[in-house]
Amino acid sequence: MDSKAATACVLIIGNEILSGKTQDTNLQFLGAELASKGITLVEARVLRDDKAAIVAAVNECRAAYTYVFTTGGIGPTHDDITTECISEAFGRDVVLHEEAVERLRRRGLELNAARLKMAHVPEGASLIENPLSGAPGFRVENVFVMAGIPAVARGMFSTLDEQLGGGAPIQSRNVDVYLPEGELAAPLEAIVRKYPQVEIGSYPFYRKRRQERRFGANLVVRGTDEALVDQVLEEIITTMTNLGGETG
Amino acid sequence: MDSKAATACVLIIGNEILSGKTQDTNLQFLGAELASKGITLVEARVLRDDKAAIVAAVNECRAAYTYVFTTGGIGPTHDDITTECISEAFGRDVVLHEEAVERLRRRGLELNAARLKMAHVPEGASLIENPLSGAPGFRVENVFVMAGIPAVARGMFSTLDEQLGGGAPIQSRNVDVYLPEGELAAPLEAIVRKYPQVEIGSYPFYRKRRQERRFGANLVVRGTDEALVDQVLEEIITTMTNLGGETG
Repeated sequence: MDSKAATACVLIIGNEILSGKTQDTNLQFLGAELASKGITLVEARVLRDDKAAIVAAVNECRAAYTYVFTTGGIGPTHDDITTECISEAFGRDVVLHEEAVERLRRRGLELNAARLKMAHVPEGASLIENPLSGAPGFRVENVFVMAGIPAVARGMFSTLDEQLGGGAPIQSRNVDVYLPEGELAAPLEAIVRKYPQVEIGSYPFYRKRRQERRFGANLVVRGTDEALVDQVLEEIITTMTNLGGETG
Repeated sequence: MDSKAATACVLIIGNEILSGKTQDTNLQFLGAELASKGITLVEARVLRDDKAAIVAAVNECRAAYTYVFTTGGIGPTHDDITTECISEAFGRDVVLHEEAVERLRRRGLELNAARLKMAHVPEGASLIENPLSGAPGFRVENVFVMAGIPAVARGMFSTLDEQLGGGAPIQSRNVDVYLPEGELAAPLEAIVRKYPQVEIGSYPFYRKRRQERRFGANLVVRGTDEALVDQVLEEIITTMTNLGGETG
């Protein structure tokens, strides 16, 4: 694997995200964490608890990206179908994992049928530790299967450090500019053309400042060369200030 | 079109969502709004500012779903490429839309090249009004292209009412149950089997209650038959109370 080109996809599984019931927060967390490891998160998909759709997405994405991370659907209830979907995607049986049983037992939980469901994984999967509540996630090849509860997902991801190879961490600097994007676009584009080694983004906002709502943009410079990222941000600030834009 | 089977997909466009810089909130808003119109949001994808990826996703999703909604990438800066991507997906030219120019002019804005970019749409597109800041979105066939700024996206979506045909609004009721999912899973599944006409979800949480963090689940009943949804929720509450679970 060319570690500089490490890529990732996140699959967020659960009807609750698509019905508007639940605000997902795992994507933002994973995006920031992966960037800090030099892994580019290229795509995310949010999927319903639908077996055919999940199996198809897992197979498409595990072939396209270095890593696939899934969140959600590995609990004990009827709508937790991620484990059977991953098994089907890989053409493997679902099997009871003795170490997973042991981890649940150590939590002092009664091992009824529902809880034992959480100790089942695709054959040959390795476990992902769950520091918070015991029931593990698992890994099959380049697919990492984690819980949906944000605190549990974060805990599981924190245990993966040594399993994830990336490139140089991506450095990011940004500045708020209180100019409408329509006024800053052309001078910004000149800077974009001058520095192809960095990625420059303009993210418009509309927010209150000094008692009035104003349009502006958060300008972001990203790249692996920290000195260059700093230099480009400085040039952006100077340019925007000369245009009459407040910054900061 | 069978309006009862109206489906939708949301495409969230922008590097900032995948880098962890920005927390998306448009998906939750759109999911809830679409449900209230009886339109099932089946899938969402978050995409980078990458032309080939956006074109491919638009073409795949507009063929698969009744409606596709995109957010992001229609501003005036270099990284706003949604309009050219939609044009390419439909094989249409990008053209200046006179009415869009007029709307920008009415806002009293200087019509420089960057702002005029926001008045370009795929040939034959109809405009989506922007009540907040003038620069319109647009519709091509079943694809609705909206801004990424949440306040603007909400404003644009609010103007689409008459263009969206759905089915009976989906009713939703829910209750918090302070029992671990491993204990409530089996009795809940019995209720799931008894009422195939509704969709029942279990969404675990881990939160503070009376000075201690506890596991529990938010149990959700969804369906178009309001009386049945209420009845099933009542049965869930009775069952969970009998199991010793606090609710509410």
